[in-house]
Amino acid sequence: MTERDIVALAGGVGAARFLRGLVHVVEPSRLVVVGNTGDDLVRHGLHVSPDLDTVVYTLGGGIHPEQGWGRADERFTVATELAERYGRSDWFTLGDRDLATHLVRNDVLRAGGTLAQATAEIARAWGLEFRLLPMTDDPVETRITTTDGRDLHFQEWWVGERAAGEVADVRLEGASRARPAPGVLEAIGSADAVVLCPSNPVVSLGTILSVPGISEALRDAPVVGVSPIVGGQVVRGMADRLLPAVGRETSASAVAEMYADLLDAWVLDHADALLAERVEALGVRVAVTDTIMRDRDTTAALARVALDQLAEERA
Amino acid sequence: MTERDIVALAGGVGAARFLRGLVHVVEPSRLVVVGNTGDDLVRHGLHVSPDLDTVVYTLGGGIHPEQGWGRADERFTVATELAERYGRSDWFTLGDRDLATHLVRNDVLRAGGTLAQATAEIARAWGLEFRLLPMTDDPVETRITTTDGRDLHFQEWWVGERAAGEVADVRLEGASRARPAPGVLEAIGSADAVVLCPSNPVVSLGTILSVPGISEALRDAPVVGVSPIVGGQVVRGMADRLLPAVGRETSASAVAEMYADLLDAWVLDHADALLAERVEALGVRVAVTDTIMRDRDTTAALARVALDQLAEERA
Repeated sequence: MTERDIVALAGGVGAARFLRGLVHVVEPSRLVVVGNTGDDLVRHGLHVSPDLDTVVYTLGGGIHPEQGWGRADERFTVATELAERYGRSDWFTLGDRDLATHLVRNDVLRAGGTLAQATAEIARAWGLEFRLLPMTDDPVETRITTTDGRDLHFQEWWVGERAAGEVADVRLEGASRARPAPGVLEAIGSADAVVLCPSNPVVSLGTILSVPGISEALRDAPVVGVSPIVGGQVVRGMADRLLPAVGRETSASAVAEMYADLLDAWVLDHADALLAERVEALGVRVAVTDTIMRDRDTTAALARVALDQLAEERA
Repeated sequence: MTERDIVALAGGVGAARFLRGLVHVVEPSRLVVVGNTGDDLVRHGLHVSPDLDTVVYTLGGGIHPEQGWGRADERFTVATELAERYGRSDWFTLGDRDLATHLVRNDVLRAGGTLAQATAEIARAWGLEFRLLPMTDDPVETRITTTDGRDLHFQEWWVGERAAGEVADVRLEGASRARPAPGVLEAIGSADAVVLCPSNPVVSLGTILSVPGISEALRDAPVVGVSPIVGGQVVRGMADRLLPAVGRETSASAVAEMYADLLDAWVLDHADALLAERVEALGVRVAVTDTIMRDRDTTAALARVALDQLAEERA
């Protein structure tokens, strides 16, 4: 391989875990991670970027190990004060350590900086050796419409209402006006490999792909995806609640179909080996391996398998 | 007395202590406190109002008892994280509990609300029964020029540099475009009494008085002031560092002279009884009493003396 970029498109928890493996099989300085910002929201006037922060905290070693999001050894003095003194209890509780991150981001944004600049400062503080880019610097927001006619921010539905109600539609508000953040298209355009991390295909990767220009750039790039669905089940998250709303079943092959235009290769779990033929019929090379990310070694092996599919293709 | 408003013009610590007495001698629902916002500053993109918060925390029972500012039982998880993780140690350290206040203010301001609206919500949460108004909703900033040519935000000089250097000039940046906050001129115009709290005459009350319209309104109102200088010494703060910069000596009579256009009466400490004649020569009634605010009873007695000066005048 040459020393060109490896690009990873990433959602939250699943992607962050995958990246822990990826940084062991590629030189981190070659890696550009493009993160989902459709889940971003404003709390107490602060811009919060849940997926970017999950990537930062996981790769930087500060993540809450059981939750998979938020900070380890977190405290809640501010949130308690907001709730008890100011009657502002919030379904999206911000811990004290986590708040420091949002204050740094707030400071950069209020001073006229971009989300990409704020993200770069935060990533640098955590010692990340790869580049972490938001998919866009522009305001976008993933909205959920329920079958009973409610229209909610994705986080309000997922965290605030614990995913109550049946989902009728998912859309990225602001997508038509959003531009990819500086560096995103350039990194994809010159990449040796683009990896679709095992993230929610509707609200994480689907969101990134709906930023105008990104899907188009990926059509000309070598792209491999890792299935977030194993044996017809989501490994984590709520993709099974959202796939029906976009007319897809919850299966490793149905997700591959969503990406069919872009994919050169797709990595399936052994549990889904029987679906390989269906994916190959899309003109996509298939690798079957162990996709459950139990620890760093299994995750690094998974990342290696994914990259090898493209290496073979170019060979 | 009729049931019209009592208005108090207030800086930070000294004023807050005085107000603890004042609320014991007037019905709090009659009281309108106009607070200094020239010390306001932005930290981590959040609007911080030190003097308003000192009034709120003191009257609401949450003040740090020894410091006289900031919260009792404060914690510093966020500030520690900002310093240690993000290299953003700050000369103006925000505690965790205090941060909740700034987040409430930030939320109101980011949603398009005014500083007055944010202040009202904060005051309500603390159970204050009087109205607390910022002197202005507009951006203003007290700036210090030192004799060695530096130009600093007041807080940067006072807190950040521990008042290093000789002060050449003090000015309120933005004053010419600032309008009194809604309700300020109305309260002064219909007040039975306006009390100038024992605050810094240059950067606390001087700042309030430099908002266009406020001094003019006070000329027609019954005004009594309580000297912040006792025996040629500041009781707290740094007025003695600033009075020379505006061509005044540090004395109870020199401060009365600064307010001469506005004052009907002036309250001096026994220590300054010999200055009474000089103040009376300005056409100002003088009361001599104990002005050291040792506890609630002595402070209430002081407030009573101040108000009585105006009651006598009207009799």
